[in-house]
Amino acid sequence: MATENINDLFIEELKNILDAEHQITKGLPNLIKASESLELKDALSGHLKETEGQVERLNKIFSLLKIKPQTTSCKAMKGLIDECDAVIKEFSKSALRDAAIIAKAQRIEHYEIATYGTLKSFATELGLIEITALLKTTLDQESAADKKLTKIAEGSLLTAGINSEANSK
Amino acid sequence: MATENINDLFIEELKNILDAEHQITKGLPNLIKASESLELKDALSGHLKETEGQVERLNKIFSLLKIKPQTTSCKAMKGLIDECDAVIKEFSKSALRDAAIIAKAQRIEHYEIATYGTLKSFATELGLIEITALLKTTLDQESAADKKLTKIAEGSLLTAGINSEANSK
Repeated sequence: MATENINDLFIEELKNILDAEHQITKGLPNLIKASESLELKDALSGHLKETEGQVERLNKIFSLLKIKPQTTSCKAMKGLIDECDAVIKEFSKSALRDAAIIAKAQRIEHYEIATYGTLKSFATELGLIEITALLKTTLDQESAADKKLTKIAEGSLLTAGINSEANSK
Repeated sequence: MATENINDLFIEELKNILDAEHQITKGLPNLIKASESLELKDALSGHLKETEGQVERLNKIFSLLKIKPQTTSCKAMKGLIDECDAVIKEFSKSALRDAAIIAKAQRIEHYEIATYGTLKSFATELGLIEITALLKTTLDQESAADKKLTKIAEGSLLTAGINSEANSK
């Protein structure tokens, strides 16, 4: 199907991110298992639940658009998840591996922040008020998940971060 | 070479982003040529100049670390740039193509925002003050470039954005 207008482009991007979310749902359990820090395991597990909610939200958007949920292969996400798998293979369980996992996971978050940002702009332009609100909810979750990972890596005044633990060994 | 500590991880990530920046330097001229909007062409051209400066900044960082600038293949960036090339092939020059170009370009920006954010965290942890400042300069440029693209897509109270132009045709 040719992409002839902004509505077509919007639907193409929805199919792309639905595939990306499916890939993340499959990939996150490996990252959780590979993490040493309980705080990191907890943050990634929380984000896995959020991701499942994001898939539901996308399915609801397809339903509001009165089209069947479909996917197109998101090669960029495949590349990003392959990089996560490479980190798991390269390192044994350690604070250093955790630091590397956070680095790769934040690239996944930012891919989603960019994509949901675009989708929200398109939905706003198309006057899809309810769908815009659903996309904003997901976008806000992604931004919060990214900030949480930064905090776990960098620590706070009260607790040492993973980068500091990785540096002290 | 095995990655044994956070300094090794920092250098690995520097090699990865140097390769990514080289790819962006080669890829951006195609996007500039393919854009219809003068505002978009101008923003991407400005960012090409910034990217050249970012490469210089990375070379300076390698020099401060007293190691030769090296690259490792950044497959994620290859995937993101392949998606840009696909957009150029799929659409003829139009506001719709411009909207699709912005969508893909913002994923590139966000890949860089995530990576430079990680690099800045690592440099801070390693106590590399001058290098942290150089990375912050690049990170700020990337965030500003991303915001500029959002503004061009969404427009303002005074000017119609590209998404609106693409929707009116």
